[in-house]
Amino acid sequence: MNAEIIAVGSELLTPQRIDTNSLWLTDQLNSLGVEVTTKTIVGDDRERLAIAVRAACARSDVVILTGGLGPTEDDVTRDAVAGALRRTQVFRQNICDAIERRFRRTNRAMAEINKRQAFVIEGAEALPNPNGTAPGQWIQDGARAIMLLPGPPNELKPMFTRECLPRLQALLPPQVIRTQSYRIALMPESEVDQRIAPVYTKYKNPVTTILAAAGDIQIHLRARCSTAAEAESLLAEVGPLIEAILGDSIYAKNLDPLEVVVGKALRARSQTLSVAESCTGGLVAERITSVPGASDYFLGGFLTYTDRIKTELLGVPADLLREHTAVSEPVAEALARGARERTGSTWALSVTGVAGPTGGTEATPLGTVIVGLAGPDACSTRRARFLGDRDRVRALAAQLALDVLRRELATPR
Amino acid sequence: MNAEIIAVGSELLTPQRIDTNSLWLTDQLNSLGVEVTTKTIVGDDRERLAIAVRAACARSDVVILTGGLGPTEDDVTRDAVAGALRRTQVFRQNICDAIERRFRRTNRAMAEINKRQAFVIEGAEALPNPNGTAPGQWIQDGARAIMLLPGPPNELKPMFTRECLPRLQALLPPQVIRTQSYRIALMPESEVDQRIAPVYTKYKNPVTTILAAAGDIQIHLRARCSTAAEAESLLAEVGPLIEAILGDSIYAKNLDPLEVVVGKALRARSQTLSVAESCTGGLVAERITSVPGASDYFLGGFLTYTDRIKTELLGVPADLLREHTAVSEPVAEALARGARERTGSTWALSVTGVAGPTGGTEATPLGTVIVGLAGPDACSTRRARFLGDRDRVRALAAQLALDVLRRELATPR
Repeated sequence: MNAEIIAVGSELLTPQRIDTNSLWLTDQLNSLGVEVTTKTIVGDDRERLAIAVRAACARSDVVILTGGLGPTEDDVTRDAVAGALRRTQVFRQNICDAIERRFRRTNRAMAEINKRQAFVIEGAEALPNPNGTAPGQWIQDGARAIMLLPGPPNELKPMFTRECLPRLQALLPPQVIRTQSYRIALMPESEVDQRIAPVYTKYKNPVTTILAAAGDIQIHLRARCSTAAEAESLLAEVGPLIEAILGDSIYAKNLDPLEVVVGKALRARSQTLSVAESCTGGLVAERITSVPGASDYFLGGFLTYTDRIKTELLGVPADLLREHTAVSEPVAEALARGARERTGSTWALSVTGVAGPTGGTEATPLGTVIVGLAGPDACSTRRARFLGDRDRVRALAAQLALDVLRRELATPR
Repeated sequence: MNAEIIAVGSELLTPQRIDTNSLWLTDQLNSLGVEVTTKTIVGDDRERLAIAVRAACARSDVVILTGGLGPTEDDVTRDAVAGALRRTQVFRQNICDAIERRFRRTNRAMAEINKRQAFVIEGAEALPNPNGTAPGQWIQDGARAIMLLPGPPNELKPMFTRECLPRLQALLPPQVIRTQSYRIALMPESEVDQRIAPVYTKYKNPVTTILAAAGDIQIHLRARCSTAAEAESLLAEVGPLIEAILGDSIYAKNLDPLEVVVGKALRARSQTLSVAESCTGGLVAERITSVPGASDYFLGGFLTYTDRIKTELLGVPADLLREHTAVSEPVAEALARGARERTGSTWALSVTGVAGPTGGTEATPLGTVIVGLAGPDACSTRRARFLGDRDRVRALAAQLALDVLRRELATPR
C-alpha cells in the first residue's frame, strides 16, 4: 500500500520553514508497512492544491493532507479537496457547537469565521480535535483513504494516532517489519553500491537502501512479512552476505555513529583516550564528547595549531618540525606520543594536515591528512588525501581518526 | 516568475531525512524575486519522477531538480527528465574524461558505472561540478528553465551560485536588489521580533525576515527597486532604526558568523587566542579554526575533560576543584589563566559547565555554563544557564564564549 503526503501552507514555501510533520507521519505509516512515495508542499492556493489532490488520488491508496484547516480565507484545504473529489460540503451544527464550547472554556467568544470549520466534505467522517478548533476529516473514496489533518504537530499527532491509525490498520493485511542497518566509514557510495549490488538486487524483500553522507555510508535492509519469524529469517539470509563482502569496513551493525562505537569499545576495555589535534582544531574531541558519559573514557587533549605550540605543549622537537614539516608521519607520531605521555591515557590520537584553502605543497598537497595513534605497545600513522573544501577535509580527517582508533580497538588483545 | 523544486531520492521519503536544499534554494530564488509555488519530493522512481517533471513544467517557469545524478541504478533524474521532455541523451567524452581525472587524483580507478554520469540530455548545457563527479544540467525549454543539480549541499550550492544564478538573472527583467543583514547572539527570537517589529512592520520594501538558529538570530532587510540608489536609500532609512534598537547586541552587520567577527578583531589587533575547553570538548576551537587563516591568531589550547587533567595540564589547584567544583567561577578563571600562561597568547577563553543529560546539582543545575576570559589586564567570568539537550547546551556555551570575547575586543583599547 502506498501513501502520499501533501503539506499545505505558504509558510512552508519560505526559506525559513520546513514540513517536519511528514517525517513523523512517514514513521507511523512505515511501521504499518505503508510506503510514502511522494511528498508535496503547496501554498495556500486552492487551484494548485486541488490539482495536487487529484494527482495524488490518481496514483496512491492513502492521501494525507496536513494544514490549511483553520478558519481564515487562507485556509483552503477543505474547499480544494471537496473540489478535487467533486463533493459538496455539509454544515454540521454539532461541530459548530463543540468549537463554540471550546472558545467559552477560555472565556472567549467564537468569531463568525470559525463557523467555516464546521463544514465537512460530503461522506467524510469528522475527526475530533481535543487540542484545537479544527476537526480533521477521514474520507473513504472507494479503496482510497483520504485524511485532512491539522498542521500544528500537537494537534496532528494525537489525532492521527487515535483516529487514523486504527482505521488504516483495518484496511491492511496483517504484517510485520524487521530492519537491519550497517554503517561504513570512508568508502565512496559508488564503491559500496558496486560491491553489494550483486546481493541486494537479487532480493525484493528485504528492501535495501543506501544513505550517503560525507565519509559515512548507511545501509538499511527492511524485511516485510506476515510473521516476525519470516521477516527475521530473510534478514538472517541477506545480512551475512553483505557482512561477508564489506568485512571490517562495517563499523556498526546498527545506527551508532563512529564516536559511539569508539566510546563503547573504550568503556568495555576500561581504557582512556586523549587527542592532539592540529588541522581538525577540536573536531575529533567535539565528536567524542558529544556522547553523554564520554568523561568515563575521554581525558582531554591538546589543540596544537602552530609549530611553536606543538613544541612547547607536546615536546615535538623543533628539528623534527623543520626537517619533516608539521604535516608528516614523524610529527603525527610525536604529537600522539606527547599527548599520551602528558595525559596518561591508554590511547592518544593525533591529526595533522592541510585543510586548505591554501598551504598545499608538492609533497603535501591540499587535503593531505595524517593521523597518528599512540598506544600501549606502539605508535602507528595513517596518511590520506581528501578532496573538497576546508570543512569537508576537516570532517573527513576527524572521521579517519575515529576509524583508525575503531579498527585498533576491534583487534583482539 | 514562479519556480518549483523537485527533490529526488528515496532517502528523502524515510522518517530520518528531509530535503533541506530547498530552503537554501528558496532563499536564492526569492532574492531574485522568484517565488517558489510547489515543492515535490519523489523517490528513486523513474516513472513517478517523469510525471512530476511533466506536471511542474506545465505550470512553472523554473523547475529545479536536486539529487538523483549519481552513478547507480537508483539515480534516475537524467532519464526521467529526458523522458518527460521527450529528448534523447548524448554521451560526452569530455565529461567522462573529467570524471576519470577526478578519480585518478585520489589514486582510485573510475568504476564502469560512473560513465552514466557523462550522459547529457539533448540540448542541455552541462554544468561543471568541482566538488563531485556528477555534472549538473541546464535546459532551456522555450521560456522555461529546467535545472538538474546534484543532491549533496557542498556540490549543489556552489554550482547553483556559479552556473545557475547568472543564467536565471539573464531571464529576468532588470531589477536591483540590495540587502542589509544583522546578526545577534543569544537573544530569543521572540525578543528580537518584539523589539524591532514596530519598525519593520511599517515598511513593505525593504522586506524584513528574521531567521533563528540556536543562540543566533539573523535579520535580513531586502530592498528591491529599479535602481541601486533607490534600494540603497531605503536600506539607509530602515537599517539605522534597527541598529538603534539592538545596539551592541548586534555582533555583525553582514553575514559573518561570530568566529569570523572574533577572528577579524584579533587579526586587526595582532593579538592571539588560546582556549581551555571542558564541557564544550573542542567546539569553541573547532569554530575558530573553521575560518581559513585562523592560524594567524589562534595558537591552540587544552581540552580538560577531567579534574585530574585540569590540574596536570593547566595547574588548576586540586583544592580549588574540591572546594568550588569544576563548574565554578574560580575554576573557569584558573583554566583561562593557565591556558594563557602556557601558550603565551594575548587572550584565553575557558568554558566549563554541565551539558547533561546528567550531573546537575542544586548549586549548578543542568545547563549551567561558566565562561572565563583571561587577558593582558584581568580575568573575567560570565555565568549562564541554558535549557535544552546536551547538543544545545554545548552549542550555546560555545556561542557565549565567542560572544564574551567579541564584546571584550569591541571595547576601545
